[in-house]
Amino acid sequence: MTEGIKRRGLMLVLSSPSGAGKTTLSRRLLETDSNITMSVSATTRAMRPNEVDGQDYFFVDAPKFETMAKDGAFLEHATVFGNRYGTPKKPVMDALAAGRDVLFDIDWQGTQQLKEQAREDVVSIFVLPPSREELERRLRSRAQDSEDTIQQRMAKANGEISHWPEYDYVVLNSNVVHALSQIEQILGAERARRTRLIGISEFVAQLTEG
Amino acid sequence: MTEGIKRRGLMLVLSSPSGAGKTTLSRRLLETDSNITMSVSATTRAMRPNEVDGQDYFFVDAPKFETMAKDGAFLEHATVFGNRYGTPKKPVMDALAAGRDVLFDIDWQGTQQLKEQAREDVVSIFVLPPSREELERRLRSRAQDSEDTIQQRMAKANGEISHWPEYDYVVLNSNVVHALSQIEQILGAERARRTRLIGISEFVAQLTEG
Repeated sequence: MTEGIKRRGLMLVLSSPSGAGKTTLSRRLLETDSNITMSVSATTRAMRPNEVDGQDYFFVDAPKFETMAKDGAFLEHATVFGNRYGTPKKPVMDALAAGRDVLFDIDWQGTQQLKEQAREDVVSIFVLPPSREELERRLRSRAQDSEDTIQQRMAKANGEISHWPEYDYVVLNSNVVHALSQIEQILGAERARRTRLIGISEFVAQLTEG
Repeated sequence: MTEGIKRRGLMLVLSSPSGAGKTTLSRRLLETDSNITMSVSATTRAMRPNEVDGQDYFFVDAPKFETMAKDGAFLEHATVFGNRYGTPKKPVMDALAAGRDVLFDIDWQGTQQLKEQAREDVVSIFVLPPSREELERRLRSRAQDSEDTIQQRMAKANGEISHWPEYDYVVLNSNVVHALSQIEQILGAERARRTRLIGISEFVAQLTEG
Protein backbone atom coordinates (compact mmCIF):
# COMPACT_ATOMS: atom_id res chain seq x y z
CA MET A 1 0.00 0.00 0.00
CA THR A 2 1.20 3.48 -0.79
CA GLU A 3 -0.40 6.93 -0.91
CA GLY A 4 -0.50 7.39 2.87
CA ILE A 5 -2.29 4.12 3.48
CA LYS A 6 -0.51 2.10 6.15
CA ARG A 7 -1.44 -1.06 7.92
CA ARG A 8 -1.29 -2.56 11.36
CA GLY A 9 0.87 -5.69 11.59
CA LEU A 10 -0.67 -9.05 12.38
CA MET A 11 0.16 -12.04 14.57
CA LEU A 12 0.49 -15.14 12.43
CA VAL A 13 0.02 -18.31 14.47
CA LEU A 14 1.15 -21.64 13.10
CA SER A 15 0.01 -24.62 15.14
CA SER A 16 0.27 -28.32 14.39
CA PRO A 17 1.17 -31.60 16.02
CA SER A 18 4.92 -32.24 16.01
CA GLY A 19 5.64 -34.24 12.89
CA ALA A 20 3.59 -31.99 10.58
CA GLY A 21 6.60 -30.04 9.31
CA LYS A 22 5.74 -26.75 11.00
CA THR A 23 9.32 -25.95 12.03
CA THR A 24 10.53 -26.14 8.42
CA LEU A 25 7.60 -24.01 7.23
CA SER A 26 8.30 -21.35 9.89
CA ARG A 27 11.99 -21.20 9.01
CA ARG A 28 11.29 -20.89 5.28
CA LEU A 29 8.67 -18.21 5.83
CA LEU A 30 11.10 -16.15 7.93
CA GLU A 31 13.70 -16.52 5.15
CA THR A 32 11.40 -15.49 2.29
CA ASP A 33 9.36 -12.73 3.93
CA SER A 34 11.34 -9.78 5.26
CA ASN A 35 8.39 -8.18 7.07
CA ILE A 36 7.72 -10.99 9.52
CA THR A 37 9.83 -11.86 12.56
CA MET A 38 9.62 -14.68 15.06
CA SER A 39 8.19 -13.86 18.44
CA VAL A 40 10.82 -14.34 21.18
CA SER A 41 9.56 -15.99 24.37
CA ALA A 42 10.71 -15.49 27.93
CA THR A 43 11.58 -18.67 29.82
CA THR A 44 12.76 -19.78 33.24
CA ARG A 45 14.65 -22.77 31.89
CA ALA A 46 18.47 -22.70 31.87
CA MET A 47 20.23 -21.27 28.83
CA ARG A 48 21.93 -23.91 26.67
CA PRO A 49 25.49 -23.42 25.39
CA ASN A 50 24.48 -22.54 21.81
CA GLU A 51 21.68 -20.15 22.78
CA VAL A 52 21.70 -16.34 22.79
CA ASP A 53 19.73 -14.36 25.38
CA GLY A 54 17.19 -12.08 23.66
CA GLN A 55 17.41 -14.02 20.42
CA ASP A 56 16.45 -17.63 21.22
CA TYR A 57 14.70 -16.66 24.43
CA PHE A 58 14.68 -13.97 27.07
CA PHE A 59 16.15 -15.94 29.98
CA VAL A 60 14.58 -14.82 33.29
CA ASP A 61 14.42 -16.28 36.80
CA ALA A 62 11.22 -17.65 38.31
CA PRO A 63 10.36 -14.63 40.53
CA LYS A 64 10.81 -12.24 37.58
CA PHE A 65 8.58 -14.46 35.42
CA GLU A 66 5.83 -14.55 38.06
CA THR A 67 5.94 -10.77 38.45
CA MET A 68 5.61 -10.34 34.69
CA ALA A 69 2.69 -12.80 34.62
CA LYS A 70 0.96 -10.97 37.48
CA ASP A 71 1.47 -7.61 35.74
CA GLY A 72 -0.16 -8.87 32.55
CA ALA A 73 3.11 -8.52 30.67
CA PHE A 74 2.53 -11.78 28.72
CA LEU A 75 0.28 -12.39 25.74
CA GLU A 76 0.27 -16.07 26.66
CA HIS A 77 2.23 -18.30 29.01
CA ALA A 78 2.48 -21.95 29.95
CA THR A 79 4.42 -24.46 32.02
CA VAL A 80 6.26 -27.26 30.19
CA PHE A 81 8.21 -29.89 32.18
CA GLY A 82 8.28 -27.54 35.17
CA ASN A 83 9.71 -24.61 33.18
CA ARG A 84 7.74 -21.44 32.49
CA TYR A 85 7.44 -20.00 28.98
CA GLY A 86 5.68 -16.79 27.98
CA THR A 87 5.39 -14.26 25.15
CA PRO A 88 6.17 -10.71 26.35
CA LYS A 89 3.42 -8.41 25.15
CA LYS A 90 5.24 -5.13 24.59
CA PRO A 91 7.71 -6.08 21.78
CA VAL A 92 4.83 -7.71 19.86
CA MET A 93 2.51 -4.72 20.24
CA ASP A 94 5.31 -2.34 19.23
CA ALA A 95 5.96 -4.42 16.09
CA LEU A 96 2.27 -4.47 15.11
CA ALA A 97 1.97 -0.71 15.60
CA ALA A 98 4.96 -0.26 13.27
CA GLY A 99 3.28 -2.41 10.60
CA ARG A 100 5.48 -5.45 11.13
CA ASP A 101 4.09 -8.98 11.43
CA VAL A 102 5.04 -11.46 14.13
CA LEU A 103 5.14 -15.24 13.76
CA PHE A 104 4.11 -17.54 16.63
CA ASP A 105 4.90 -21.23 16.84
CA ILE A 106 2.52 -22.08 19.70
CA ASP A 107 -0.03 -24.76 20.58
CA TRP A 108 -3.82 -24.50 20.80
CA GLN A 109 -3.71 -23.29 24.40
CA GLY A 110 -1.32 -20.45 23.58
CA THR A 111 -3.47 -19.58 20.58
CA GLN A 112 -6.58 -19.33 22.77
CA GLN A 113 -4.79 -16.97 25.17
CA LEU A 114 -3.53 -14.84 22.29
CA LYS A 115 -7.04 -14.57 20.84
CA GLU A 116 -8.43 -13.55 24.23
CA GLN A 117 -5.97 -10.67 24.33
CA ALA A 118 -5.98 -9.45 20.74
CA ARG A 119 -8.56 -11.26 18.59
CA GLU A 120 -8.46 -8.81 15.68
CA ASP A 121 -4.69 -9.05 15.32
CA VAL A 122 -4.49 -12.85 15.25
CA VAL A 123 -4.48 -14.91 12.04
CA SER A 124 -4.34 -18.59 12.91
CA ILE A 125 -3.33 -21.47 10.67
CA PHE A 126 -3.47 -25.14 11.56
CA VAL A 127 -0.97 -27.27 9.66
CA LEU A 128 -2.01 -30.89 9.12
CA PRO A 129 0.34 -33.74 8.19
CA PRO A 130 -0.52 -35.44 4.88
CA SER A 131 -1.32 -38.88 6.33
CA ARG A 132 -1.22 -41.03 9.43
CA GLU A 133 1.68 -43.04 7.95
CA GLU A 134 3.76 -39.91 7.41
CA LEU A 135 2.96 -38.53 10.86
CA GLU A 136 3.97 -41.84 12.48
CA ARG A 137 7.11 -42.07 10.36
CA ARG A 138 8.21 -38.61 11.53
CA LEU A 139 7.40 -39.32 15.18
CA ARG A 140 9.40 -42.57 14.96
CA SER A 141 12.38 -40.95 13.30
CA ARG A 142 14.59 -41.13 16.36
CA ALA A 143 15.43 -44.85 16.36
CA GLN A 144 16.48 -45.02 20.00
CA ASP A 145 13.02 -44.08 21.29
CA SER A 146 11.00 -46.74 23.08
CA GLU A 147 7.59 -47.82 21.80
CA ASP A 148 6.07 -46.20 24.92
CA THR A 149 7.64 -42.84 24.08
CA ILE A 150 6.36 -43.07 20.53
CA GLN A 151 2.86 -43.95 21.71
CA GLN A 152 2.93 -40.96 24.06
CA ARG A 153 3.94 -38.73 21.17
CA MET A 154 1.13 -40.08 19.02
CA ALA A 155 -1.38 -39.44 21.82
CA LYS A 156 -0.06 -35.88 22.22
CA ALA A 157 -0.29 -35.33 18.44
CA ASN A 158 -3.88 -36.59 18.44
CA GLY A 159 -4.78 -34.21 21.26
CA GLU A 160 -3.29 -31.25 19.38
CA ILE A 161 -4.93 -32.21 16.07
CA SER A 162 -8.36 -32.29 17.72
CA HIS A 163 -8.20 -28.48 17.98
CA TRP A 164 -8.12 -27.76 14.24
CA PRO A 165 -11.69 -26.37 14.27
CA GLU A 166 -10.52 -23.38 16.35
CA TYR A 167 -8.27 -22.04 13.57
CA ASP A 168 -9.00 -19.56 10.77
CA TYR A 169 -7.22 -21.56 8.08
CA VAL A 170 -6.18 -25.17 7.55
CA VAL A 171 -3.14 -26.04 5.43
CA LEU A 172 -2.31 -29.62 4.52
CA ASN A 173 1.44 -30.11 4.37
CA SER A 174 1.84 -32.82 1.69
CA ASN A 175 4.45 -30.71 -0.02
CA VAL A 176 6.53 -27.99 1.66
CA VAL A 177 6.64 -25.68 -1.37
CA HIS A 178 2.88 -25.84 -1.85
CA ALA A 179 2.12 -25.42 1.87
CA LEU A 180 4.53 -22.47 2.10
CA SER A 181 2.86 -20.85 -0.90
CA GLN A 182 -0.54 -21.22 0.80
CA ILE A 183 0.80 -19.62 3.99
CA GLU A 184 2.29 -16.75 1.96
CA GLN A 185 -1.07 -16.24 0.24
CA ILE A 186 -2.82 -16.11 3.60
CA LEU A 187 -0.28 -13.56 4.82
CA GLY A 188 -0.66 -11.49 1.63
CA ALA A 189 -4.45 -11.53 1.86
CA GLU A 190 -4.63 -10.72 5.55
CA ARG A 191 -2.34 -7.75 4.96
CA ALA A 192 -5.02 -6.32 2.63
CA ARG A 193 -7.85 -6.88 5.09
CA ARG A 194 -9.77 -3.66 5.52
CA THR A 195 -9.77 -3.74 9.30
CA ARG A 196 -5.96 -3.65 9.38
CA LEU A 197 -5.59 -0.66 7.07
CA ILE A 198 -4.85 2.74 8.51
CA GLY A 199 -5.43 6.06 6.76
CA ILE A 200 -7.97 4.95 4.15
CA SER A 201 -10.58 7.40 5.37
CA GLU A 202 -8.12 10.23 4.77
CA PHE A 203 -7.10 8.81 1.38
CA VAL A 204 -10.75 8.46 0.33
CA ALA A 205 -11.43 12.03 1.45
CA GLN A 206 -8.67 13.20 -0.92
CA LEU A 207 -10.07 11.01 -3.72
CA THR A 208 -13.59 12.34 -3.43
CA GLU A 209 -13.17 16.01 -2.54
CA GLY A 210 -15.01 18.05 -5.14
CA MET B 1 -6.20 -29.85 -1.07
CA THR B 2 -5.95 -33.59 -1.57
CA GLU B 3 -6.55 -36.64 0.60
CA GLY B 4 -10.34 -36.46 0.43
CA ILE B 5 -10.46 -32.86 1.58
CA LYS B 6 -12.64 -30.78 -0.72
CA ARG B 7 -13.84 -27.23 -0.47
CA ARG B 8 -16.93 -25.21 -1.14
CA GLY B 9 -16.48 -22.54 -3.81
CA LEU B 10 -16.73 -18.87 -2.94
CA MET B 11 -18.28 -15.74 -4.42
CA LEU B 12 -15.60 -13.15 -5.10
CA VAL B 13 -17.04 -9.66 -5.34
CA LEU B 14 -15.04 -6.87 -6.92
CA SER B 15 -16.54 -3.44 -6.47
CA SER B 16 -15.12 -0.03 -7.31
CA PRO B 17 -16.08 3.26 -8.88
CA SER B 18 -15.76 3.21 -12.67
CA GLY B 19 -12.29 4.46 -13.46
CA ALA B 20 -10.53 2.27 -10.89
CA GLY B 21 -9.51 -0.38 -13.39
CA LYS B 22 -11.80 -3.13 -12.13
CA THR B 23 -12.78 -4.40 -15.60
CA THR B 24 -9.14 -5.04 -16.52
CA LEU B 25 -8.51 -6.76 -13.18
CA SER B 26 -11.57 -9.00 -13.64
CA ARG B 27 -10.55 -9.98 -17.16
CA ARG B 28 -6.97 -10.79 -16.12
CA LEU B 29 -8.14 -12.81 -13.13
CA LEU B 30 -10.45 -14.89 -15.34
CA GLU B 31 -7.55 -15.50 -17.73
CA THR B 32 -5.03 -16.56 -15.07
CA ASP B 33 -7.24 -18.58 -12.73
CA SER B 34 -9.00 -21.56 -14.26
CA ASN B 35 -11.21 -22.27 -11.25
CA ILE B 36 -13.14 -19.00 -11.27
CA THR B 37 -15.86 -18.02 -13.72
CA MET B 38 -17.81 -14.82 -14.22
CA SER B 39 -21.34 -14.77 -12.94
CA VAL B 40 -23.81 -14.34 -15.84
CA SER B 41 -26.71 -11.95 -15.16
CA ALA B 42 -30.23 -12.04 -16.48
CA THR B 43 -31.47 -8.80 -18.05
CA THR B 44 -34.56 -7.36 -19.66
CA ARG B 45 -32.61 -5.03 -21.92
CA ALA B 46 -32.42 -5.78 -25.65
CA MET B 47 -29.60 -8.03 -26.89
CA ARG B 48 -26.91 -6.15 -28.83
CA PRO B 49 -25.56 -7.49 -32.13
CA ASN B 50 -22.26 -8.79 -30.71
CA GLU B 51 -23.80 -10.41 -27.63
CA VAL B 52 -24.50 -14.10 -27.01
CA ASP B 53 -27.50 -15.22 -24.96
CA GLY B 54 -26.37 -17.25 -21.92
CA GLN B 55 -22.83 -15.98 -22.23
CA ASP B 56 -22.97 -12.18 -21.95
CA TYR B 57 -26.41 -12.25 -20.32
CA PHE B 58 -29.48 -14.39 -20.04
CA PHE B 59 -31.92 -12.25 -22.04
CA VAL B 60 -35.41 -12.49 -20.60
CA ASP B 61 -38.60 -10.43 -20.97
CA ALA B 62 -40.00 -8.28 -18.18
CA PRO B 63 -42.78 -10.66 -17.00
CA LYS B 64 -40.29 -13.55 -16.82
CA PHE B 65 -37.88 -11.36 -14.81
CA GLU B 66 -40.60 -10.34 -12.36
CA THR B 67 -41.67 -13.95 -11.85
CA MET B 68 -38.07 -14.94 -11.14
CA ALA B 69 -37.68 -12.04 -8.69
CA LYS B 70 -40.91 -13.01 -6.89
CA ASP B 71 -39.81 -16.65 -6.71
CA GLY B 72 -36.51 -15.67 -5.04
CA ALA B 73 -34.57 -16.93 -8.06
CA PHE B 74 -32.09 -14.02 -7.87
CA LEU B 75 -29.17 -13.52 -5.52
CA GLU B 76 -29.40 -9.80 -6.23
CA HIS B 77 -31.21 -7.59 -8.72
CA ALA B 78 -31.44 -3.93 -9.67
CA THR B 79 -32.94 -1.50 -12.15
CA VAL B 80 -30.55 0.57 -14.29
CA PHE B 81 -31.92 3.10 -16.81
CA GLY B 82 -35.29 1.30 -16.72
CA ASN B 83 -33.80 -2.12 -17.48
CA ARG B 84 -33.79 -4.96 -14.95
CA TYR B 85 -30.61 -6.90 -14.13
CA GLY B 86 -30.31 -9.86 -11.78
CA THR B 87 -27.99 -12.74 -10.83
CA PRO B 88 -29.78 -16.11 -11.08
CA LYS B 89 -29.17 -18.06 -7.89
CA LYS B 90 -29.11 -21.66 -9.07
CA PRO B 91 -26.07 -21.66 -11.40
CA VAL B 92 -24.03 -19.89 -8.71
CA MET B 93 -25.06 -22.29 -5.96
CA ASP B 94 -24.35 -25.28 -8.22
CA ALA B 95 -20.88 -23.93 -8.96
CA LEU B 96 -20.09 -23.37 -5.27
CA ALA B 97 -21.27 -26.88 -4.36
CA ALA B 98 -18.92 -28.25 -7.05
CA GLY B 99 -15.98 -26.31 -5.53
CA ARG B 100 -15.85 -23.67 -8.26
CA ASP B 101 -15.55 -19.96 -7.52
CA VAL B 102 -17.72 -17.26 -9.09
CA LEU B 103 -16.65 -13.67 -9.80
CA PHE B 104 -19.09 -10.79 -9.41
CA ASP B 105 -18.59 -7.33 -10.82
CA ILE B 106 -21.36 -5.57 -8.86
CA ASP B 107 -21.86 -2.36 -6.89
CA TRP B 108 -22.34 -1.91 -3.15
CA GLN B 109 -26.08 -2.46 -3.35
CA GLY B 110 -25.66 -5.79 -5.14
CA THR B 111 -22.98 -6.76 -2.63
CA GLN B 112 -25.33 -6.06 0.27
CA GLN B 113 -28.03 -8.24 -1.28
CA LEU B 114 -25.53 -11.04 -1.91
CA LYS B 115 -24.34 -10.92 1.69
CA GLU B 116 -27.91 -11.07 2.97
CA GLN B 117 -28.42 -14.29 1.02
CA ALA B 118 -25.12 -16.07 1.54
CA ARG B 119 -22.80 -14.23 3.95
CA GLU B 120 -20.39 -17.12 4.51
CA ASP B 121 -19.82 -17.62 0.78
CA VAL B 122 -19.03 -14.00 -0.06
CA VAL B 123 -15.50 -12.55 -0.17
CA SER B 124 -15.66 -8.86 -1.00
CA ILE B 125 -12.89 -6.63 -2.31
CA PHE B 126 -13.10 -2.90 -2.86
CA VAL B 127 -10.72 -1.61 -5.53
CA LEU B 128 -9.59 1.98 -5.08
CA PRO B 129 -8.04 4.15 -7.80
CA PRO B 130 -4.52 5.39 -6.99
CA SER B 131 -5.36 9.11 -6.90
CA ARG B 132 -8.01 11.71 -7.62
CA GLU B 133 -6.05 12.88 -10.69
CA GLU B 134 -5.98 9.36 -12.15
CA LEU B 135 -9.68 8.78 -11.40
CA GLU B 136 -10.61 12.06 -13.08
CA ARG B 137 -8.35 11.36 -16.04
CA ARG B 138 -10.07 8.02 -16.62
CA LEU B 139 -13.56 9.46 -16.22
CA ARG B 140 -12.67 12.23 -18.73
CA SER B 141 -11.17 9.83 -21.25
CA ARG B 142 -14.01 10.13 -23.70
CA ALA B 143 -13.28 13.57 -25.13
CA GLN B 144 -16.75 14.21 -26.51
CA ASP B 145 -18.39 14.10 -23.06
CA SER B 146 -19.78 17.34 -21.68
CA GLU B 147 -18.52 18.80 -18.39
CA ASP B 148 -21.96 18.00 -16.89
CA THR B 149 -21.65 14.34 -17.81
CA ILE B 150 -18.18 14.20 -16.28
CA GLN B 151 -19.37 15.89 -13.09
CA GLN B 152 -22.21 13.37 -12.85
CA ARG B 153 -19.71 10.54 -13.24
CA MET B 154 -17.49 11.99 -10.52
CA ALA B 155 -20.50 12.31 -8.17
CA LYS B 156 -21.45 8.70 -8.90
CA ALA B 157 -17.86 7.55 -8.29
CA ASN B 158 -17.79 9.43 -4.98
CA GLY B 159 -21.03 7.76 -3.89
CA GLU B 160 -19.66 4.32 -4.72
CA ILE B 161 -16.33 4.97 -3.00
CA SER B 162 -18.09 5.96 0.22
CA HIS B 163 -19.04 2.28 0.68
CA TRP B 164 -15.49 0.93 1.04
CA PRO B 165 -15.96 0.25 4.79
CA GLU B 166 -18.49 -2.50 3.97
CA TYR B 167 -15.88 -4.68 2.22
CA ASP B 168 -13.62 -7.44 3.59
CA TYR B 169 -10.53 -6.27 1.71
CA VAL B 170 -9.31 -3.06 0.11
CA VAL B 171 -6.91 -3.14 -2.84
CA LEU B 172 -5.32 0.02 -4.19
CA ASN B 173 -4.89 -0.21 -7.95
CA SER B 174 -1.74 1.87 -8.59
CA ASN B 175 -0.31 -0.95 -10.66
CA VAL B 176 -2.37 -3.66 -12.38
CA VAL B 177 0.20 -6.44 -11.85
CA HIS B 178 0.51 -5.67 -8.15
CA ALA B 179 -3.25 -5.31 -7.62
CA LEU B 180 -3.91 -8.56 -9.49
CA SER B 181 -1.34 -10.33 -7.34
CA GLN B 182 -3.11 -9.09 -4.22
CA ILE B 183 -6.46 -10.33 -5.51
CA GLU B 184 -4.93 -13.72 -6.31
CA GLN B 185 -3.50 -13.91 -2.79
CA ILE B 186 -6.90 -13.14 -1.32
CA LEU B 187 -8.46 -15.86 -3.47
CA GLY B 188 -5.73 -18.35 -2.49
CA ALA B 189 -6.11 -17.57 1.21
CA GLU B 190 -9.89 -17.70 1.22
CA ARG B 191 -9.75 -21.09 -0.47
CA ALA B 192 -7.83 -22.40 2.58
CA ARG B 193 -10.30 -20.91 5.07
CA ARG B 194 -11.40 -23.61 7.49
CA THR B 195 -15.11 -22.89 7.15
CA ARG B 196 -15.00 -23.65 3.42
CA LEU B 197 -13.26 -27.01 3.74
CA ILE B 198 -15.26 -30.20 3.48
CA GLY B 199 -14.17 -33.60 4.75
CA ILE B 200 -11.54 -32.50 7.29
CA SER B 201 -13.32 -34.20 10.17
CA GLU B 202 -13.12 -37.48 8.29
CA PHE B 203 -9.49 -36.87 7.31
CA VAL B 204 -8.57 -36.03 10.93
CA ALA B 205 -10.36 -39.18 12.11
CA GLN B 206 -8.10 -41.21 9.80
CA LEU B 207 -5.01 -39.31 11.03
CA THR B 208 -5.73 -39.94 14.68
CA GLU B 209 -7.24 -43.41 14.80
CA GLY B 210 -5.14 -45.56 17.13
